[in-house]
Amino acid sequence: MRPLLARLRSAVGDDAVLADEDVTAAYRRDMMPLAPAGKPAAVVLPADAGQVCRVVRTCADAGVPIVVRGAGSGLSGAANAVDGCVVLVTTRMDRIVEIDPDNRLAVVEPGVVNLDLRTAVERHGLFYPPDPSSYDWCTIGGNLATNAGGLCCVKYGVTTDSVLGLDVVLATGELLRTGRRTVKGVAGYDLTRLFVGSEGTLGVITRATLALRPLPQAPMTLVATFTTTRQAGDAVGRVVRAGVVPSLMEIMDRTCVEAVERHLRTDLGGGAALLVCQSDAGGEAALRELAAVAKACEAAGAELVHSTDDPAEGRDLLTARRSVLPALEAYGSWLTDDVCVPRDRIADLIVGCEGIADDTGLRIAVLGHAGDGNMHPTIVYDPATQEAAARLAFDRILDLGLELGGTITGEHGVGKIKQDWLARELGPVGLRVHRDIKHALDPTGLFNPTSMLPA
Amino acid sequence: MRPLLARLRSAVGDDAVLADEDVTAAYRRDMMPLAPAGKPAAVVLPADAGQVCRVVRTCADAGVPIVVRGAGSGLSGAANAVDGCVVLVTTRMDRIVEIDPDNRLAVVEPGVVNLDLRTAVERHGLFYPPDPSSYDWCTIGGNLATNAGGLCCVKYGVTTDSVLGLDVVLATGELLRTGRRTVKGVAGYDLTRLFVGSEGTLGVITRATLALRPLPQAPMTLVATFTTTRQAGDAVGRVVRAGVVPSLMEIMDRTCVEAVERHLRTDLGGGAALLVCQSDAGGEAALRELAAVAKACEAAGAELVHSTDDPAEGRDLLTARRSVLPALEAYGSWLTDDVCVPRDRIADLIVGCEGIADDTGLRIAVLGHAGDGNMHPTIVYDPATQEAAARLAFDRILDLGLELGGTITGEHGVGKIKQDWLARELGPVGLRVHRDIKHALDPTGLFNPTSMLPA
Ligand SMILES: Cc1cc2nc3c(=O)[nH]c(=O)nc-3n(C[C@H](O)[C@H](O)[C@H](O)COP(=O)(O)OP(=O)(O)OC[C@H]3O[C@@H](n4cnc5c(N)ncnc54)[C@H](O)[C@@H]3O)c2cc1C
Ligand SMILES: Cc1cc2nc3c(=O)[nH]c(=O)nc-3n(C[C@H](O)[C@H](O)[C@H](O)COP(=O)(O)OP(=O)(O)OC[C@H]3O[C@@H](n4cnc5c(N)ncnc54)[C@H](O)[C@@H]3O)c2cc1C
Repeated sequence: MRPLLARLRSAVGDDAVLADEDVTAAYRRDMMPLAPAGKPAAVVLPADAGQVCRVVRTCADAGVPIVVRGAGSGLSGAANAVDGCVVLVTTRMDRIVEIDPDNRLAVVEPGVVNLDLRTAVERHGLFYPPDPSSYDWCTIGGNLATNAGGLCCVKYGVTTDSVLGLDVVLATGELLRTGRRTVKGVAGYDLTRLFVGSEGTLGVITRATLALRPLPQAPMTLVATFTTTRQAGDAVGRVVRAGVVPSLMEIMDRTCVEAVERHLRTDLGGGAALLVCQSDAGGEAALRELAAVAKACEAAGAELVHSTDDPAEGRDLLTARRSVLPALEAYGSWLTDDVCVPRDRIADLIVGCEGIADDTGLRIAVLGHAGDGNMHPTIVYDPATQEAAARLAFDRILDLGLELGGTITGEHGVGKIKQDWLARELGPVGLRVHRDIKHALDPTGLFNPTSMLPA
Repeated sequence: MRPLLARLRSAVGDDAVLADEDVTAAYRRDMMPLAPAGKPAAVVLPADAGQVCRVVRTCADAGVPIVVRGAGSGLSGAANAVDGCVVLVTTRMDRIVEIDPDNRLAVVEPGVVNLDLRTAVERHGLFYPPDPSSYDWCTIGGNLATNAGGLCCVKYGVTTDSVLGLDVVLATGELLRTGRRTVKGVAGYDLTRLFVGSEGTLGVITRATLALRPLPQAPMTLVATFTTTRQAGDAVGRVVRAGVVPSLMEIMDRTCVEAVERHLRTDLGGGAALLVCQSDAGGEAALRELAAVAKACEAAGAELVHSTDDPAEGRDLLTARRSVLPALEAYGSWLTDDVCVPRDRIADLIVGCEGIADDTGLRIAVLGHAGDGNMHPTIVYDPATQEAAARLAFDRILDLGLELGGTITGEHGVGKIKQDWLARELGPVGLRVHRDIKHALDPTGLFNPTSMLPA
């Protein structure tokens, strides 16, 4: 058998195979600092599905594992290399193949950057909802493989809610087509949604047919501050019970507020918690929705409630939320969790994280998607001296999330950092079914073998 | 080994095992006249998940296949008995276990009737969207297993879009828990949605956690009539392009209109096609939406456009749509298809069905969920003399659906009537993956062995 590199080069062309360790090092890990990362044998950048098939066949023949990689913005180590593997990078497959306004759908290759798709469909008055905060660099393929969320899922759902069909290269090197171009369809098992969120462990997504929505109205924005965390949690509960579905509802705790006030040299009114809420329902409907939110916040004891229909002021108000991570960087490195809890347990989660911060001596800032209970407790630490403490805090937050009836991951995935926690959340029967499905689709463990499922 | 009946009786109690052929005959088939139906060895009616586990273990030990059955309202033969099988009926498991307004969710057993759940959650100002036309007798378990649609999916999605988690008894007799109670969650594969739509071929759903929405506003209704089918199709396209998402958009062709006019002794304005549209956005937003729909209909050349905000008049206008099947019964038995085509091919489908009606000499009435392209061409025939012609027309409609870029089933499923068509829609790779997944979860073919996947 010819050496692996030679075979890969004939599969995808010389310029699409990188093997120099200085170069491949850039493809070893994603944005999760604590996950293990191996050294790849090669990095390949196929240009189309045909080349992906050839790479998969080559690796399958050689018994070399494949780790698929989009932009590497992941926060679970899912795209991290395994020793001796081939990292298959999708960034050259970045064509928007089709935008069909009559059927409100788009067909794209996996390497398309989320923002590029948003911009392209906006020209047709259309909207691709999934909006992870990394939208200006993460890829649609990565979004699909992690079932990414974002700020607007409280109203529009997550990535899986916007997918109609996929092309996937299987471990056999064959191309599987799932789903359809129609809005509805129940012919056979929902394979599309089995691949969505499978974190590159079942196949390589080479194309996706995505459902689009009409572009919503410019949003109206509301900000409320609270003297206690409980009040903010209570406000979220009152919004839910009032039957309002805002297009965005974010929460920041005291630690976030203080960091952002220092970073932006601004006054956010201090307080123990801040809620930002938007409605994109337009006109009278938006006014009605935000009035109901304002009432809920006031009833919960808000210190200050302020609404605006000026999009520029709305963007400014959101800037505080978007600045949390950069603001925290002033204090050290950050490590973010993404537990999701029932909406009536948000205050318990924040209070619990305060306890964990006290116990571990680390700063933990809690921000998150309050509208769906998906919280990002973010640990600030010094990697040189506090890594063990950070990992301890990280694990205790997962424990707390499960205790509160939640899940260990609302949107970032399991990857190479939460495999043991997955086993705990699923239980033995659930874990076995996962293994059975992995085995049915990838019997030799070709794809991302050390990710998601515990060894 | 003790005889099967004795073992079943000790599993679920004497009164929950039916074996008299006169009695079990009522559980042999669903509402699809053309699908094969065998003779069951027994019908069992377990009272809880524990009993379901025992029945499954008993059958697995004895090598006796299980066909799960809800209300038997299915239109694909999926619930039809297989010779010598045990029909496991869920209607005694009909408890609404919990309604949680703070987290907008409900936990139910599978035998709960769709309408009973709707009514129960309405009391809390909440809404369970999936609304198959059979909602007053079909069960949530059947809705889950078929991924049922309905009239409001154009805005609110189908059953799978309202499910958070499931309890499923597997072929091993073990209980699997999938999903969660939180809005978001990506821990592991999306098993929940693998079981949704699996037509009883992978396990028995014994409990479901369902996502609810706030109860929408009372709907405003619009009716439009057209002199040609093309105009009606064009109107649907214009509504889509105008960025309106009505909460209901139904279409009826000339044959439907004539049958209903005769049946209800009313004048629907004749014409080649009728559209009914609703908006539940409330107030100004609903007015804005229906004005945009009216404009689209007029631009497409509508003969008559009429809107009302009176709920009673709206219900009357919908009565025409709801009366199509009873109206067609005046002419003979009906057999309904449920192809789903891209929204811009609806007119092509209706025109194509006119051709098939001419060729086969049968009356074919086309009605359907225009908002998502899910059409129900309904064949009227005399079972005594025209069964072969009806089956021919049925198949030619499936062919046409695929030709137009659609799917063979938008909501009724594959069951025991479209297995060969499934093979054609999926192709060899897709079919193999289906078999691999079936094998992974149900290696001996215990559950519904002659359904969905071709032999
Ligand atoms: C600052 C910041 C903010 C973030 N905010 C959010 C947020 O709001 N919501 C959220 O959900 N996430 C967020 N993330 C996490 C991350 O951006 C998402 O998980 C994103 O979907 C990853 O996309 P990617 O292209 O970078 O994928 P990668 O990180 O390269 O890969 C992620 C996973 O997808 C797999 N994969 C990638 N492409 C394919 C393919 N074509 N076929 C099969 N598998 C594939 C990989 O194997 C890996 O398992 C954030 C990250 C950062 C750094
Ligand atoms: C007049 C009429 C109108 C209809 N309108 C619609 C419509 O608008 N939209 C639509 O989607 N359908 C419609 N249907 C079809 C049918 O009502 C739906 O498919 C419904 O979901 C079936 O529910 P059921 O309880 O009757 O299930 P059944 O017919 O008893 O079973 C259907 C399938 O579900 C499986 N199943 C049932 N319960 C379970 C369980 N607990 N675990 C595992 N598998 C299970 C069965 O094995 C079978 O495969 C209509 C039918 C009629 C007769």
